[in-house]
Amino acid sequence: MGSASRKTFLPLDPMTFSNESKAVIDFIADYYKNLEKYPVQCTVEPGYLSAMLPESAPYCPEPLQDILEDVSNCIIPGLTHWQSPNFFAYFHANASTAGFLGEMLCSGFNVVGFNWISSPAATELESIVLDWMGKMLKLPSSFLFSGTGGGVLHGSTWFSLSPENLRFVIEDDIKSGLVPLFLCATTGTTPSGAVDPIAELGKVAMEFKLWLHIDAAYAGSGCICPELRHYLDGVELANSISMNPHKWFLTNMDCCCLWIKEPKLLVDSLSTDPEILRNNASKSKAVVDYKDWQIALSRRFRALKLWVVIRRYGLANLMYHIRSDIAMAKRFEALVGEDERFEIVVARKFALVCFRLKPKVEEEDLNCKLVEAINSSGRAFVSHAVLSGIYVIRCAIGTTLTQQHHVDALWKLIQDKAQSLLM
Amino acid sequence: MGSASRKTFLPLDPMTFSNESKAVIDFIADYYKNLEKYPVQCTVEPGYLSAMLPESAPYCPEPLQDILEDVSNCIIPGLTHWQSPNFFAYFHANASTAGFLGEMLCSGFNVVGFNWISSPAATELESIVLDWMGKMLKLPSSFLFSGTGGGVLHGSTWFSLSPENLRFVIEDDIKSGLVPLFLCATTGTTPSGAVDPIAELGKVAMEFKLWLHIDAAYAGSGCICPELRHYLDGVELANSISMNPHKWFLTNMDCCCLWIKEPKLLVDSLSTDPEILRNNASKSKAVVDYKDWQIALSRRFRALKLWVVIRRYGLANLMYHIRSDIAMAKRFEALVGEDERFEIVVARKFALVCFRLKPKVEEEDLNCKLVEAINSSGRAFVSHAVLSGIYVIRCAIGTTLTQQHHVDALWKLIQDKAQSLLM
Repeated sequence: MGSASRKTFLPLDPMTFSNESKAVIDFIADYYKNLEKYPVQCTVEPGYLSAMLPESAPYCPEPLQDILEDVSNCIIPGLTHWQSPNFFAYFHANASTAGFLGEMLCSGFNVVGFNWISSPAATELESIVLDWMGKMLKLPSSFLFSGTGGGVLHGSTWFSLSPENLRFVIEDDIKSGLVPLFLCATTGTTPSGAVDPIAELGKVAMEFKLWLHIDAAYAGSGCICPELRHYLDGVELANSISMNPHKWFLTNMDCCCLWIKEPKLLVDSLSTDPEILRNNASKSKAVVDYKDWQIALSRRFRALKLWVVIRRYGLANLMYHIRSDIAMAKRFEALVGEDERFEIVVARKFALVCFRLKPKVEEEDLNCKLVEAINSSGRAFVSHAVLSGIYVIRCAIGTTLTQQHHVDALWKLIQDKAQSLLM
Repeated sequence: MGSASRKTFLPLDPMTFSNESKAVIDFIADYYKNLEKYPVQCTVEPGYLSAMLPESAPYCPEPLQDILEDVSNCIIPGLTHWQSPNFFAYFHANASTAGFLGEMLCSGFNVVGFNWISSPAATELESIVLDWMGKMLKLPSSFLFSGTGGGVLHGSTWFSLSPENLRFVIEDDIKSGLVPLFLCATTGTTPSGAVDPIAELGKVAMEFKLWLHIDAAYAGSGCICPELRHYLDGVELANSISMNPHKWFLTNMDCCCLWIKEPKLLVDSLSTDPEILRNNASKSKAVVDYKDWQIALSRRFRALKLWVVIRRYGLANLMYHIRSDIAMAKRFEALVGEDERFEIVVARKFALVCFRLKPKVEEEDLNCKLVEAINSSGRAFVSHAVLSGIYVIRCAIGTTLTQQHHVDALWKLIQDKAQSLLM
């Protein structure tokens, strides 16, 4: 143990920081260059990694080069490559250079913005960016800080996948009889990209005084395009709405936007006021303390990431990104439609196409086998859903790197595998 | 709108990725070099940022240089500099080169590891690193995968700050009468760094069949040093334990470890099984699906970050980091003790010193004024707590860059400001 006055261990020395970070940048750039060489879905067996790594932490430091070699030899072979242009499963998780830059700035400053005073820029940029994003989606001003509402960034949606979470969040309100029930309308469901009729649901919600939340996690990004905005019609009847820029908005994980008409309800339920965090700015009520908009105390400066994405690309390119994905999905849908062995199961709205081989009585699990044949080839990765009892293949187009020729190659792969199965 | 086949917008082109990322690395390295020039706590007024930025998102893309200039001119002046060596408030949020590298790899791969199949390496490395970390803390094997338990990484502690959260998590169990109540013991409380007597609480918990959770968010990192490990004595009586590497373990935000003796209880409460995520690996029950260990579905590859930190620094340097902070805190405590105008209010256990100017009847808010004088100087940032009605000044030593001379300068600043107040 050395003396504290002769500190020899300098884990944030700017020169080392710069050199080692640039080595990792080169490593990641190489990964992107080689991305198409890897099987999209890896073929490792459960437990593969523990056979490759030591059972305990090392006592002595290891050189960066050794660690990166292990990333190459042990980690990358066990990844499912979400950034591969041949990844068509689930919904994508868009990475981008700007998203990565914003994430670096967030991680570099490494501030904890639980309340305004703990880093005013973190809180203020978050409010500004949520207003920018809300305006891009043409949300009514009742959801914006510049109006009478407000927005917040979270790591993941609370709402759509676990409505019971919201129930927890508003349990105090429930007790006081203000919000008796919760109704979640989805714009772009995960299985099929379906859109609930918001305006109709909104009327029911108003009649029965239900809290109406719109989950636009996936398709919300698309609604920045005027020709798609109608899918949010009726949003003025909702109490809250969320969308995830980390899905289809070129923003690296994680980043979810939530807007709420009456932030006071959230704050009343979630506010904490320990003495250690008391300060004059909070007392003045002139500032937002985002700790009161979430369950956890700590929070990252995620707004930087979304801000850099929006500025670096601009609304023009962001719309181009959405539109080119939709154009590719349209073309894929047309190709499927032209092949009489296949059928489109659900009308496409965004960039997700749900289709299947037409069923044959003697081959019940034909489509399941087709998915396995596609995925085990390593050349593409699709997923499935079951819609009203029908097994469908999902082709979600939208990774950052996907181009037309990848989609064409996917369709050729599907046709080849189908041919083998049907022979 | 361009045709999808002539894609001209390439937001993940490896060359641009590499060039722009390196420019941001240089920017962050410069920030670290200049960190001591900024006032630790900034002096902006509420609303300052909206006066500097446009009200809406730009339509056209902006050059990176313009964005970085705005970060310099608009964002940095509004930051509270958590990485400043003169930051002694709250608990620190340790950034480090290795933590940053791990964060870059996580963000670069940008995989979503909700279940094993969605990226096997993400799940397996998380289990391995949690076992490494558990062994560094000498947790009983009942908390490890190599034993009968297991661990998981979260973005923030669930447990300590919102016990009602755990109640929510285990509400199904409560209904079935399995877990009637919850007891949280803290190792290193936020206000004073106090340590609850785990062994004694454990006996009570066993007698009344309470769920005993140990919150070692801050001090858990310290317990990797054999001379501090005794603060976790009795952990074998607990049901779960958590600690936050993003506080004092050189791991950039966010990263929290949670170990649990019976992961099955967590899985039974939180498991989701939508058709779209069904796969053979999950069906086989041979794998961990971490989505069932948390409320949200999406999750980042945080394990990479903790793994790179542990390997790049090794247990030896990590212990050195903890010990040098404690040595600095000891010295600061001694300096305070030598000045008869001051008193230590709580015996120091880790690297947090709670002290105050001895009270005078005629000056009730003397210590509050002293905190304001220190912080408004911009040369250091401390915070306060109220312990049994006594207002104390907290000096939490442990940012990555803090060295002995920063602590000595803090003490001189405190003495000077006290002198002015007492004149």
